[in-house]
Amino acid sequence: MPTFTPPVKDIQFLLHEVLKVSESDTPGYDELEADFTGAVLEEAGKIAANVLQPLNTVGDEEGCTLENGVVRTPKGFKEAFATLAEGGWMGLDCDPEYGGQGMPHLLNTATGEMFSSANMAFQMYVGLTHGAASALHEHGSDEQKATYLPKLYSGEWTGTMNLTEPHCGTDLGLIRTKAEPQDDGSYKISGQKIWISGGENDLGKNIVHLVLAKIPNGPDGVKGISLFVVPKFLVNEDGSLGDRNAVTCGGLESKMGIHGNSTCVMNYDGATGWLVGEMHKGMRAMFTMMNEARLSVALQGYAQAEVAYQNALGFARDRLQGRDVTGTKNPNGTADPIIVHPDVRRNLLDQKSIAEGGRALVYWGATMIDRSQRADDKDAEAMISLLIPVMKGFLTDKGFEATVLAQQTLGGSGFTKEWGMEQFVRDARIAMIYEGTNGIQSLDLVGRKLGQDGGKAIMAFFEMVKSFIKENDGNDTLKAQFLDPLKAASKDLQTAAMYFMSDGLKNPNNALAGSYDFMHLFGHVATGLMWAQMAKAAQDALANGATDTAFYTAKIETGRFYMARQLPMTSTHLARIQSGADPVMTLEAANF
Amino acid sequence: MPTFTPPVKDIQFLLHEVLKVSESDTPGYDELEADFTGAVLEEAGKIAANVLQPLNTVGDEEGCTLENGVVRTPKGFKEAFATLAEGGWMGLDCDPEYGGQGMPHLLNTATGEMFSSANMAFQMYVGLTHGAASALHEHGSDEQKATYLPKLYSGEWTGTMNLTEPHCGTDLGLIRTKAEPQDDGSYKISGQKIWISGGENDLGKNIVHLVLAKIPNGPDGVKGISLFVVPKFLVNEDGSLGDRNAVTCGGLESKMGIHGNSTCVMNYDGATGWLVGEMHKGMRAMFTMMNEARLSVALQGYAQAEVAYQNALGFARDRLQGRDVTGTKNPNGTADPIIVHPDVRRNLLDQKSIAEGGRALVYWGATMIDRSQRADDKDAEAMISLLIPVMKGFLTDKGFEATVLAQQTLGGSGFTKEWGMEQFVRDARIAMIYEGTNGIQSLDLVGRKLGQDGGKAIMAFFEMVKSFIKENDGNDTLKAQFLDPLKAASKDLQTAAMYFMSDGLKNPNNALAGSYDFMHLFGHVATGLMWAQMAKAAQDALANGATDTAFYTAKIETGRFYMARQLPMTSTHLARIQSGADPVMTLEAANF
Repeated sequence: MPTFTPPVKDIQFLLHEVLKVSESDTPGYDELEADFTGAVLEEAGKIAANVLQPLNTVGDEEGCTLENGVVRTPKGFKEAFATLAEGGWMGLDCDPEYGGQGMPHLLNTATGEMFSSANMAFQMYVGLTHGAASALHEHGSDEQKATYLPKLYSGEWTGTMNLTEPHCGTDLGLIRTKAEPQDDGSYKISGQKIWISGGENDLGKNIVHLVLAKIPNGPDGVKGISLFVVPKFLVNEDGSLGDRNAVTCGGLESKMGIHGNSTCVMNYDGATGWLVGEMHKGMRAMFTMMNEARLSVALQGYAQAEVAYQNALGFARDRLQGRDVTGTKNPNGTADPIIVHPDVRRNLLDQKSIAEGGRALVYWGATMIDRSQRADDKDAEAMISLLIPVMKGFLTDKGFEATVLAQQTLGGSGFTKEWGMEQFVRDARIAMIYEGTNGIQSLDLVGRKLGQDGGKAIMAFFEMVKSFIKENDGNDTLKAQFLDPLKAASKDLQTAAMYFMSDGLKNPNNALAGSYDFMHLFGHVATGLMWAQMAKAAQDALANGATDTAFYTAKIETGRFYMARQLPMTSTHLARIQSGADPVMTLEAANF
Repeated sequence: MPTFTPPVKDIQFLLHEVLKVSESDTPGYDELEADFTGAVLEEAGKIAANVLQPLNTVGDEEGCTLENGVVRTPKGFKEAFATLAEGGWMGLDCDPEYGGQGMPHLLNTATGEMFSSANMAFQMYVGLTHGAASALHEHGSDEQKATYLPKLYSGEWTGTMNLTEPHCGTDLGLIRTKAEPQDDGSYKISGQKIWISGGENDLGKNIVHLVLAKIPNGPDGVKGISLFVVPKFLVNEDGSLGDRNAVTCGGLESKMGIHGNSTCVMNYDGATGWLVGEMHKGMRAMFTMMNEARLSVALQGYAQAEVAYQNALGFARDRLQGRDVTGTKNPNGTADPIIVHPDVRRNLLDQKSIAEGGRALVYWGATMIDRSQRADDKDAEAMISLLIPVMKGFLTDKGFEATVLAQQTLGGSGFTKEWGMEQFVRDARIAMIYEGTNGIQSLDLVGRKLGQDGGKAIMAFFEMVKSFIKENDGNDTLKAQFLDPLKAASKDLQTAAMYFMSDGLKNPNNALAGSYDFMHLFGHVATGLMWAQMAKAAQDALANGATDTAFYTAKIETGRFYMARQLPMTSTHLARIQSGADPVMTLEAANF
């Protein structure tokens, strides 16, 4: 059975030594003193390790069941959800006006990471409730906010997002769910939604569905989509629950992983709903939530990598097999622990450098979301908009890859259910697909984000890289192992961006055929920048006489591995991009 | 539900236009005329598509059950096994003296590929029976051969290989299973073996276990290992079945995939066995079988990629979502089929180029096994020995990756069990682990094979690449799209080999830390060579007036994609290798 150790020390290092959050002028960050965040993280870590992690295998094996229209979540999930709700964890970064704790999104990201590492399928219920609440907070009327937010923040009710229909997922302009206006200002919602995570569940007393639908006679395509709130039980004026609404779960998907999370077919048969925000502006309402939602999926990628790595490492230290070729390390044992073998270390460091590099990237992303929301910082908003598809696509791909590598560390045991490694692989797999497939992320990046405001955001990114390199110019160790590789990788990214600008103009397929590689190329440079910053912070700590030299040295060495072994991917991504559209486009569709 | 279309045309292209088998002087190859192989492949294809493929989901969902010591395979497996046995497919390439069909191993590889694509878990029973038979054929006494081979070739009995024990898989020197010599020349075998594929099953009337064990007072480590044959039922002198032997199935593993194949804990409690080959030479006996066994696992990698690709392609042609940015392709539909989108094509071509390139590589491998066995060609034997770890490691990694990509083509549907794509991923995953993990393959390659006979085999490989490039020097299309990239990739491989020779001598960890990358680098160059050869064969066919231009053009275009989009990986692998041991070795094991 796998274990999970909350990486509180690693998180604290990022918050206080790399991001230096309490020195930031982002409103609310002054509260994030090390003692305070440490206490919060310790507490969240305990819940993750003691409450959620033991339910991870249970959730996988038991799954969810649908009986008489009611979905039963796996044994223990209801109680665990209540524990989180009671502790105020559901509304940690939510508006105090409605009962939230008002903490920065960054802190919620850090606690959510541990919950997700411990039990991804469980944490999805929490995350989607949070997402639905955020959408209502941003776009709902005062009455809607007063009705729903306190219940969602407190975990009394749960929330869902309903976008996909059987014939359309990516291309939402095709949706058929209808919303017929009623005389009382409400709408009758009719249609079928699929793959609705937590669409029906037994965790709370009510379920608040946010649903995309079309009001008849509106514009075609995505311009005719509106957003509605459709509660499972109608809410009386006094806040008590009224009639059952005409929304039902028509079935559960049987799927590769995240068995503990109910993936529902939802049937809306003239269900009563209310418009959220403006008519026909439903896509815009969804899009404003997308940065937060996609960042939380990026997190799932590296959070599974983290827990898988922890267990692979444990195995590699225990398992005796073969001898160190440079000299026996465990003379009293029948063999040496496999962590002595270079290829096992290569495997482990691939996992570790992605888990820790991914964490740095996502926390940096969370600080930008905080800045854009709390300080109305447009530059931060532009930067996070640019980086969101990179983080989501790159970190879920690499996070999944890391779980596969961690499984590989265990050899045959990794393939058995008993050791639990294969569940990390199956669970992590979904993150590459939902919240916009990674292919769609790459199109969002290259087709929408890259050129926004004349490429202002990516120029700012390059400027960041350049400044960091310049600031540390005299630092010889950093230079050879971090700055030079970062500079080369950043140059590859610039060359690729230039190629898109010149050759993409001639033929858009030149850019689109390279979009996926560009997303990964960008992900590597951004993660490389994170590692350079972490190495610098670790150097500083050592220079300032930190006593935990093992911890800081490990940061530097892991970063060095990333720069030497992961970052060289940028040259391959660039070469692929520069091969242009032809190798991808000339084969006739009929002849594949 | 997934479908499978036997790729007979692609196989025939390889056999007759690329490998030109019937022109070869390998004994027996003169029989392999196109009409004959076409008829055999059509027939095998029918069994694969009509008998085995429909049982693939059944096998996954139902799995195997153990009751009262007897393993029941999934519904339909027993009948399907009988169909294969009756058709003579089990002994297709086996010795006619014992009832085999005497065909080249190449033909068995081609039919086995289709069986494996259709139902990997099922085909493992066939493959392991074949492997056990081959080991007995190579090392058994005349009496053992007469007793076991006809029954194994005919599929009346099945066979297994018993190596792994709970405390050792890779490091077989640690095995504890004992073989006590008896007065009648037999041995009493005692110990526990785990992860024994098909260890207990209901497909045949008897099960022939080949077991590694130690005879007391022999040499320590691998030098004290002997090979034994231990039948489930003892065999009377007249060939009829006698007493039940003291070997029992102690449990079934619950695992990520290949549910239709029973993975057994096997308990030997003083079971009667007989020595196969020489005492203490068990490892050598296993090793002579390893090329064949590992080639069949390499095949599993691309065979799952093939069937996954077929289904991803079908989805990409049907699913309407979004519009071609360069102009609508399906004006009468609500959207264009997603195969118009560059990133979907990139994804499909990654799968296709690996499935078809992998097939070429493995078939070439099979011709070398035939040459070494039928013509006693030492050069062919040296070349296949060198390439086996490359094929096994590279093709199972890339094949798995292709199944993940194919799953991605389907978006959310790919994650559901209903569409069957996720099973391909779960089944393909094991091939990276068993028959020596891919990490072990890379050690075998760099630590053993590369330097054998002063590097003679890899020199011969480089010579092959060079000759092919030289022969086609005046071919301009081939030059730009195939020969130049191949030359550059081959140069990367040479540089890496040189690095190992110089820096690996200084410190073996410099070589070992780069072994995995070297295996992939080599795999890319070898697959690149295959694609160059296939493109040349397709060019020739078109020049000779072949009417099926779509087929041959597709070969050239797919190859072109491989060279432009996959082959650039060689530069990254080289850069990683050249970074040497330090980034992998300096972090203390305690500080990971």
